[in-house]
Amino acid sequence: MEKKLVLIRHGQSEWNKLNLFTGWKDVDLSEQGKQEAAQAGKAMLEYNVTPEICFTSFLKRAIKTLNIVLDTMNLDYLPVYKSWRLNEKHYGQLQGLNKKETAEKYGDDQVLQWRRVFDCQPPALAEDDERSPLKELRYKDVDKKDLPLTESLKDCIARCMPYFNEVILPEFKNHDTILIAAHGNSLRGIVKNLKNMSEDEIIKFNIPTGIPYLFTFDENLNLKEDRFLGDEETVKKLMESVANQGKK
Amino acid sequence: MEKKLVLIRHGQSEWNKLNLFTGWKDVDLSEQGKQEAAQAGKAMLEYNVTPEICFTSFLKRAIKTLNIVLDTMNLDYLPVYKSWRLNEKHYGQLQGLNKKETAEKYGDDQVLQWRRVFDCQPPALAEDDERSPLKELRYKDVDKKDLPLTESLKDCIARCMPYFNEVILPEFKNHDTILIAAHGNSLRGIVKNLKNMSEDEIIKFNIPTGIPYLFTFDENLNLKEDRFLGDEETVKKLMESVANQGKK
Repeated sequence: MEKKLVLIRHGQSEWNKLNLFTGWKDVDLSEQGKQEAAQAGKAMLEYNVTPEICFTSFLKRAIKTLNIVLDTMNLDYLPVYKSWRLNEKHYGQLQGLNKKETAEKYGDDQVLQWRRVFDCQPPALAEDDERSPLKELRYKDVDKKDLPLTESLKDCIARCMPYFNEVILPEFKNHDTILIAAHGNSLRGIVKNLKNMSEDEIIKFNIPTGIPYLFTFDENLNLKEDRFLGDEETVKKLMESVANQGKK
Repeated sequence: MEKKLVLIRHGQSEWNKLNLFTGWKDVDLSEQGKQEAAQAGKAMLEYNVTPEICFTSFLKRAIKTLNIVLDTMNLDYLPVYKSWRLNEKHYGQLQGLNKKETAEKYGDDQVLQWRRVFDCQPPALAEDDERSPLKELRYKDVDKKDLPLTESLKDCIARCMPYFNEVILPEFKNHDTILIAAHGNSLRGIVKNLKNMSEDEIIKFNIPTGIPYLFTFDENLNLKEDRFLGDEETVKKLMESVANQGKK
């Protein structure tokens, strides 16, 4: 029996709209983001891809994307598991800053490094910064030493993959189709792993928002095919628009 | 440490609005129902009752009520477990019928018996009826012998309580506050049990929609207090309106 994994990157959030660095800040989806989620659900219906179990992050823009997808598909009743390990990359002190202003102040190159160099961390939050995850009730059950104050893409992938490998993948024993709704960088970790991409390749690879990304495996979990569930033109346009973020 | 259990009965659904028997039919919340859910979340914030783990049914009107409550409280990340055992009472052949027409055809007394006599079942669905849970993908993992084709209140309570006693209550070992978003009759089972009500008492007891119902226990799970989180007048008015459903 074929196994299927679907990744969905959440759509526009209120802070994406304002062009602010978001990271672990728990901002809501914008109206456009909600529509993108509904569209993702419709695409899955159209392609007849029916998940049996779902995973998402601790952040409402991913959780609500998943809820809207499931509601659109009349699959609200599916089991959903949430983990901080699927959260977006932590952007440290950049969280809440305007991307354009940050680019003007530090230069395009520095911003692009922070966003796109594999092991480059933005400046870390102080432990007592009110934005620190150490201060948030939602992370009270997470080992303090695991909670980041900033993250490179490498760090983000490093804390995401144990959950993917040890919790998500084993569910293929009981299920044929798994859905993950998460964020640009946590999903990059999964894509890098599944497609054996280099650091350079994954940095250049922009997952479009709100487009289901389907991976099909044989019964031994060898990857057979990966494709976006949408028309080619839409997918291409979206990927270009993500690549242009953070430029002046 | 005090333990708290909050019950929320979902608000108005599209079929409540049309005055149809709903049961296991998976109808959506109406706009009013969504507002009731948001109001329930606000009440919990106001009374400072913060759940740590949540349970709901397999039906979207309860699931979406819970999602809206959590979103209103910025607690989207909480663990949510869904079970068919928290579903509404199954109304058998009455599902989809207009309550007023049913009352005119069979008489108020018969309808009131179906709805309110503890061990009276409405006429059962045929196994091959397209409304049968045996035909639904969502119940594929449930033992077929457990799936009802009709239920009395007694039946509904009998399949709900094992889940409450064996899955929900033990969570008080790890958590102080538990939230359940479900339906009029599955919640009745829980209330009957917690308050040691007679069959006659629970039949007359109408849980208002969208009003958090808080049970407080001592650390040995002895019930100390139960109260609705809302102003007295609202709660009273809502309970009367539920009692009048299904009358000509």
